[in-house]
Amino acid sequence: MLEELKKKVLKANLDLKKNKLVLFTWGNVSEIDREKGLVVIKPSGVGYDGMTADDMVVVDLNGKVVEGNLYPSSDTPTHLEFYKAFQSVGGVTHTHSTFATSWAQAGRDIPFYGTTHADYFYGDIPCARSLTKAEIEGEYEKNTGLAIIEKFREEKLDPLEVPGVLIKSHGVFAFGKDGANSVYNATVIEEVAKMAFITETVNPDVKRADKFMMDKHYLRKHGKNAYYGQTKK
Amino acid sequence: MLEELKKKVLKANLDLKKNKLVLFTWGNVSEIDREKGLVVIKPSGVGYDGMTADDMVVVDLNGKVVEGNLYPSSDTPTHLEFYKAFQSVGGVTHTHSTFATSWAQAGRDIPFYGTTHADYFYGDIPCARSLTKAEIEGEYEKNTGLAIIEKFREEKLDPLEVPGVLIKSHGVFAFGKDGANSVYNATVIEEVAKMAFITETVNPDVKRADKFMMDKHYLRKHGKNAYYGQTKK
Amino acid sequence: MLEELKKKVLKANLDLKKNKLVLFTWGNVSEIDREKGLVVIKPSGVGYDGMTADDMVVVDLNGKVVEGNLYPSSDTPTHLEFYKAFQSVGGVTHTHSTFATSWAQAGRDIPFYGTTHADYFYGDIPCARSLTKAEIEGEYEKNTGLAIIEKFREEKLDPLEVPGVLIKSHGVFAFGKDGANSVYNATVIEEVAKMAFITETVNPDVKRADKFMMDKHYLRKHGKNAYYGQTKK
Amino acid sequence: MLEELKKKVLKANLDLKKNKLVLFTWGNVSEIDREKGLVVIKPSGVGYDGMTADDMVVVDLNGKVVEGNLYPSSDTPTHLEFYKAFQSVGGVTHTHSTFATSWAQAGRDIPFYGTTHADYFYGDIPCARSLTKAEIEGEYEKNTGLAIIEKFREEKLDPLEVPGVLIKSHGVFAFGKDGANSVYNATVIEEVAKMAFITETVNPDVKRADKFMMDKHYLRKHGKNAYYGQTKK
Repeated sequence: MLEELKKKVLKANLDLKKNKLVLFTWGNVSEIDREKGLVVIKPSGVGYDGMTADDMVVVDLNGKVVEGNLYPSSDTPTHLEFYKAFQSVGGVTHTHSTFATSWAQAGRDIPFYGTTHADYFYGDIPCARSLTKAEIEGEYEKNTGLAIIEKFREEKLDPLEVPGVLIKSHGVFAFGKDGANSVYNATVIEEVAKMAFITETVNPDVKRADKFMMDKHYLRKHGKNAYYGQTKK
Repeated sequence: MLEELKKKVLKANLDLKKNKLVLFTWGNVSEIDREKGLVVIKPSGVGYDGMTADDMVVVDLNGKVVEGNLYPSSDTPTHLEFYKAFQSVGGVTHTHSTFATSWAQAGRDIPFYGTTHADYFYGDIPCARSLTKAEIEGEYEKNTGLAIIEKFREEKLDPLEVPGVLIKSHGVFAFGKDGANSVYNATVIEEVAKMAFITETVNPDVKRADKFMMDKHYLRKHGKNAYYGQTKK
Repeated sequence: MLEELKKKVLKANLDLKKNKLVLFTWGNVSEIDREKGLVVIKPSGVGYDGMTADDMVVVDLNGKVVEGNLYPSSDTPTHLEFYKAFQSVGGVTHTHSTFATSWAQAGRDIPFYGTTHADYFYGDIPCARSLTKAEIEGEYEKNTGLAIIEKFREEKLDPLEVPGVLIKSHGVFAFGKDGANSVYNATVIEEVAKMAFITETVNPDVKRADKFMMDKHYLRKHGKNAYYGQTKK
Repeated sequence: MLEELKKKVLKANLDLKKNKLVLFTWGNVSEIDREKGLVVIKPSGVGYDGMTADDMVVVDLNGKVVEGNLYPSSDTPTHLEFYKAFQSVGGVTHTHSTFATSWAQAGRDIPFYGTTHADYFYGDIPCARSLTKAEIEGEYEKNTGLAIIEKFREEKLDPLEVPGVLIKSHGVFAFGKDGANSVYNATVIEEVAKMAFITETVNPDVKRADKFMMDKHYLRKHGKNAYYGQTKK
């Protein structure tokens, strides 16, 4: 079942390595079939080399394994919370990519410093709070998702307009319209995090770029008046 | 038409990836045929892998597509302003390369710190101002070009002597006698930007190198008394 | 003798280069056969390219060469001290990997800043003191091992729970249940060292992450209640 | 003539690129045949890809081209001063490698912070002064060599014990017993420069490592009591 989706999810997971976002098994991608209410995700702790589409695991929105010989990623409950909370999200990526994770460890939002950022993120890339002792000792991975959703609700963020988030002392989650798109956004986060690190070192007094520049660049690529790329031809 | 030029422009665009200046589709190169008054440029939002010479788009200096099945780069109006303002410029490259873009985000000129810089840039690499709200909401890409040209006029810079520029909160434009040469210069800007970042961290009180060293190194490679390379033999 | 072990140790040494932990010959891996009391280790000063399993050297716990045509690594006496002091250790890796060695040169423990760290290290990655003049002029490599063991004893550290250590002004030693596992841990140390460097630059006031997060992440992967990966299925 | 030496010098030049010390044509290696008093060096401004042994240029110690169809490196007069001043030097490398050149731009010696440094450099890696206006406008490349030699004389340095040097606002020269060995040392300088940059960022108050550690590590690899590697077996 879901053979095409498994192939897509496999490819998206392999792109984590190709895009240099992961060491060893430190990342995972999932994608949802909204009609069937099923999610395909990477198996837990399995290396990318030699992984096949059949290794992908199918789970329902309660986390029950519907198909697959392997255990799903231990981060599966986080992914599922996103699919339940955000109807527009079709794919989720989790990484410990170097620069973005360092910002997460620093506990800081990545400020909007330029158009590379604004082409994909309509505002700062937020850093969700760290979890409480009770949240960590309870359903940890589920609570990770809930803390991130809380952040998006509080700041009234749309997960496709701000398709990624850090979580304090941990790492990165990226969203997308499908799995591949969430990997794309995770790649952008890493590059933007690296640039922001260099930017602040070169100019410790740097300010955010202008809001009207953010509007321009984001809307140049997204929404009904977008004019970047070939989609309209 | 312009088949040879399309091949050259394709190769120059592919070199953006080879030289590690771009992620995804984040860069473009054009070259002008001055006799015909036509510019060949990368299509918008198309990835470098699998791109062919036939995908290149031919536009006139008003931005009208003269040949090509795809939309030209959304940055085309910026390129065209350069060709109109600077008769000596034969090629233009735009990138978001990591270190140079970080200097652009920091809003700083890259200071002349050594001979690597002076071998190609006769003075600091300037950072043009960010655009006003009106300029951004109007003809944004065209106004980007105009803001850069304004900077070169104000500082009396020759675009082949200082063949590159940052624009605040955005990225990099490089000039050249042709497309390939502009990619070369964009590569130098990235390396020089990285070195300047490290230099200032290692010595926060560093001063610019001596003007007479800049004269020597720039003129060793450029102009009628140049003696670097094999050109005179 | 020990032909299988030699192949494993060769592969582990080659992984040093694959994982970008070494330049030239600057690293070595060993593994012990506890039953026989013999250790297989890389030969001294030999490059990784073209190295074969037969080049591996077999020594006993007194450092006597039992088999092999080449001299063993000059760091062999350090490795042997670890095998004698720590019964649980099955493999040892030594590197001068860039970021971790820089922390060693800085003379600092790498603080626990996030889950990437806690997934493998149950606490800070310690930095052992530099050696005294007498220790260096005496049995230097053996004394290097003893200074590290002293650090683990003083801080009551278990070398499989904190499977790596820096030594001031020098470099990195990593432990594992076998040679390959010690290379894995050496790779984690380098990545964690890089992230900690970026983290402190981005937020100079950063504090260690919460102890209960460390407990959760470490125990999610290690010990009898681990639930990461496929081991339980 | 000197066919074997040309092949060696070609290989050494190609290693500059392999070891990631150069962009484009930004580096060169030479080696001397002391008996004949002839030096083989890279041609000026020629790229590494496709370069052949026949492209290497043979010059005498006065800089006269004895054989070769191409102009020799514009840095040839610098190389020749070293061969004339330092009888022990058999090979010379010049690069603009990123981190080492940044230290040169910063105008600082690279301090001895650890054993990676001491394994090859018996003391700080010195940074020679920048040239005066008269020196630059006169025989620039020759004067570059003389300023470096002046530094070695003043500080009583042996170019095989401290086989490399920075020159302010410029780049790196490395020495060796032959060309290949000078490339090796240039590679070490770049790595040591990177580590020192990170070390100082991680600990701004870091002090040099102990002199007795430098003695130990340097002499472990060099001189008649060396015991690293396979040379004695």
